[in-house]
Amino acid sequence: MMATRTALRAQHATRCAYLGPYRVRNTFPSTLRTLHATSRCHADDFKSALESNKTWASNFASSDPEFFPASAQGQSPPILWLGCADSRVPETTILGLKPGQVFTHRNIANIINSTDISMLSIVQYAVFHMKVKHVVVCGHTSCGGVAAALANSKLDILDVWLQPLRVLREKFADELAGMDSKEQGIFLAKENVKAGVETLKRIPTVIDAVRERGLQVHGVLYDLGCGKLEEVACEEHDHSSSKRVAAFERK
Amino acid sequence: MMATRTALRAQHATRCAYLGPYRVRNTFPSTLRTLHATSRCHADDFKSALESNKTWASNFASSDPEFFPASAQGQSPPILWLGCADSRVPETTILGLKPGQVFTHRNIANIINSTDISMLSIVQYAVFHMKVKHVVVCGHTSCGGVAAALANSKLDILDVWLQPLRVLREKFADELAGMDSKEQGIFLAKENVKAGVETLKRIPTVIDAVRERGLQVHGVLYDLGCGKLEEVACEEHDHSSSKRVAAFERK
Amino acid sequence: MMATRTALRAQHATRCAYLGPYRVRNTFPSTLRTLHATSRCHADDFKSALESNKTWASNFASSDPEFFPASAQGQSPPILWLGCADSRVPETTILGLKPGQVFTHRNIANIINSTDISMLSIVQYAVFHMKVKHVVVCGHTSCGGVAAALANSKLDILDVWLQPLRVLREKFADELAGMDSKEQGIFLAKENVKAGVETLKRIPTVIDAVRERGLQVHGVLYDLGCGKLEEVACEEHDHSSSKRVAAFERK
Amino acid sequence: MMATRTALRAQHATRCAYLGPYRVRNTFPSTLRTLHATSRCHADDFKSALESNKTWASNFASSDPEFFPASAQGQSPPILWLGCADSRVPETTILGLKPGQVFTHRNIANIINSTDISMLSIVQYAVFHMKVKHVVVCGHTSCGGVAAALANSKLDILDVWLQPLRVLREKFADELAGMDSKEQGIFLAKENVKAGVETLKRIPTVIDAVRERGLQVHGVLYDLGCGKLEEVACEEHDHSSSKRVAAFERK
Repeated sequence: MMATRTALRAQHATRCAYLGPYRVRNTFPSTLRTLHATSRCHADDFKSALESNKTWASNFASSDPEFFPASAQGQSPPILWLGCADSRVPETTILGLKPGQVFTHRNIANIINSTDISMLSIVQYAVFHMKVKHVVVCGHTSCGGVAAALANSKLDILDVWLQPLRVLREKFADELAGMDSKEQGIFLAKENVKAGVETLKRIPTVIDAVRERGLQVHGVLYDLGCGKLEEVACEEHDHSSSKRVAAFERK
Repeated sequence: MMATRTALRAQHATRCAYLGPYRVRNTFPSTLRTLHATSRCHADDFKSALESNKTWASNFASSDPEFFPASAQGQSPPILWLGCADSRVPETTILGLKPGQVFTHRNIANIINSTDISMLSIVQYAVFHMKVKHVVVCGHTSCGGVAAALANSKLDILDVWLQPLRVLREKFADELAGMDSKEQGIFLAKENVKAGVETLKRIPTVIDAVRERGLQVHGVLYDLGCGKLEEVACEEHDHSSSKRVAAFERK
Repeated sequence: MMATRTALRAQHATRCAYLGPYRVRNTFPSTLRTLHATSRCHADDFKSALESNKTWASNFASSDPEFFPASAQGQSPPILWLGCADSRVPETTILGLKPGQVFTHRNIANIINSTDISMLSIVQYAVFHMKVKHVVVCGHTSCGGVAAALANSKLDILDVWLQPLRVLREKFADELAGMDSKEQGIFLAKENVKAGVETLKRIPTVIDAVRERGLQVHGVLYDLGCGKLEEVACEEHDHSSSKRVAAFERK
Repeated sequence: MMATRTALRAQHATRCAYLGPYRVRNTFPSTLRTLHATSRCHADDFKSALESNKTWASNFASSDPEFFPASAQGQSPPILWLGCADSRVPETTILGLKPGQVFTHRNIANIINSTDISMLSIVQYAVFHMKVKHVVVCGHTSCGGVAAALANSKLDILDVWLQPLRVLREKFADELAGMDSKEQGIFLAKENVKAGVETLKRIPTVIDAVRERGLQVHGVLYDLGCGKLEEVACEEHDHSSSKRVAAFERK
């Protein structure tokens, strides 16, 4: 059994090597080892998940018999969440909310790219059609995508996807030079959130919704170590805002 | 108060009109009205969500003090979930799982497009680097994206995003002709899941992982009316599989 | 000198190896060797090209003094060309036309992908704004992109780009099985052109222009061996056309 | 006949209105009117172009009988051209070159977007596989895409495509404020070229080719009024170059 744990640990270290140095130099804590052993050694994680769904649905229906029939009639979520694909940041769970409250897009490193039609379609649907009141860009600590952008390994298609993060790495090279890798990860995750908020504010649909009905765009960072969200300051001068609107609004 | 409810209902009907006829012809059930009223009338849904996160994190940490510190060390999810952005289908919640178990990408109508670098980056990260054991494409009943593809309204960027769904609508025009709109929605959601599974099986990283370590690709449909997942049959003849691998593998 | 020629030939063979077997098994003909030697041995091909431009502009202005001033006022090309990036297929040259007559997009293997915003922007600009009368998808013999899709080498980002061509390779696996590599190249180039024409006819802007003002969409194949274009038959039954329009038009 | 010319002129003015004010306020010169009349009034511009191709091919084959057979053996262009789709800027024609010398990608406003797989595939093919020696980004005066980015009309998918140009408009708002529209068009076209060159120098394949074999990346502007290319200065400090390479190279 000890051998298995050691093997799993080694396997995991290898697997996650590209996620950056500060992750793999830690010893692998007992809880995650257990979680690991459980999830990995299970005969079939997929069948197990389907079973788990059935149990969840039955329990939920018992406690609130009207929920599912009502839910099937439509959604009207107040929040659009643009977050990371990381398995540790499931938006509805960490916000302590029920299904139906957070419209969600999740990609690698919550990158908001002005020409990405997947993200743009989400924004169009949520902001223009669903009339969400808040758009939230959420980054997180120990982000593998951020760590990858701070390293220089070849990563195939991920190299294309992460180019916008590298632009930030280049832009803030002087600031990053004085930090250790953990600080770098948090710094770049925050700058990525700020850049995402700015990019969103340049989308015509967002510009219109901000002006016409007070849509708000927020940046937050999720701390994996404690499970809490903190706001990332994304203020700007009125002059900057005016310039942006002048260049990006469509009439 | 009654007036407000009526107004909200009308507003919602208008907002969701493009989602398809079967949705708006239903009267708006009381539970959702309440949910609506709650979420919409709240002074600030964003601040409320941040508060809710703090409560969730504190409670979770109390019940399992090692969870967050362990979680911060790395992830090793067994499942990659490719699902819809719909607020009613948060994968971790409906699977009854904890953070850390499902790597997740969610876009409009869970469309798997072979040249979408957002999706491809997710697959590369999850399949090649994280070594997930299962990839799950999840569609759902009453999907707004599916309904939009079954209608013919102008929807800006969504019109581009939904083109692959319309290809399926064209392909199955004869089958769809004999169905009512609810059946059409379920039929097209399932075909979309099947097409997504096929597209995934043409990605070189997936081909390699299937052959080398038995990666499995599944299709499922989530029934909003009961909260349960059912598998969507995605079998194929050996001959088809051989042809596909011959055309798509890279050496 | 002979040694140089041999070295160049070897270098070229290596460089073009991925382009497919039928290309490199030919001996390297004298004319291209000369062209090669000229273009490759020149002190600086870029400066040389700038000089060549100056000569061209002066000569053209002498023979038609009104051309450039008139050209600067606007364009009104009757044709949109969607062709391959291959250096041997410059549309205006091979059509024997002057600048101002062919609006042009050229990518690897003239692939028309329904969610490619680069191509879609071209079509929107040319069809909706410039009101071109003809859209031409042009493939060609000995296409390197087609050859790459018929082989199975790893080609990084090109592997993503070429996925639609591989779908055709899979679809026509039985037909391709009985052909030699040259026939395969021509067959797949033609099927790619047909698929491109079909994809174009599913774009709402194109559907509208076909109906409202008789826009025509054509497929052609350029034969590098003789410099001539031939039409690729892209007919379809009225029934197919109706189904397509029903699924793709926006009102 | 005079009536027809006037009608055509009016039609053209309407059609090109979105291209910016400096274009439509000019009277329509006689040469282009003629060209117009010719190209527009022809029974079928497509059939005419096919005929023109046949004539060109026959003449070319007569003057250089070895050209086409040699051309069919392969290409080895020294230059990759990344230019605008504008019909008035056909690269091979304006460079006074023959088929086979310029590998070409042309899109709306020659925008180089770091996550555009169409452009990236071109660069991979030309730089890594064909080993071109020069990459040229070419903008031009009176560019419709640039004029559109300087205006604020709704343009559907073009609005997505042009977002990077609007970022430049926002960045240089102060400089642009003091210019007339013609100056703005030239200024933004040049900044777009510079930005394109910078984006290219952040692509790993380009970084490697610059270091390993001296690949050069150039920016040029084509003056429609005289047919000549001028270089756009794209120098940078060594320090900037080092920072960029540090952030973007892959090992």
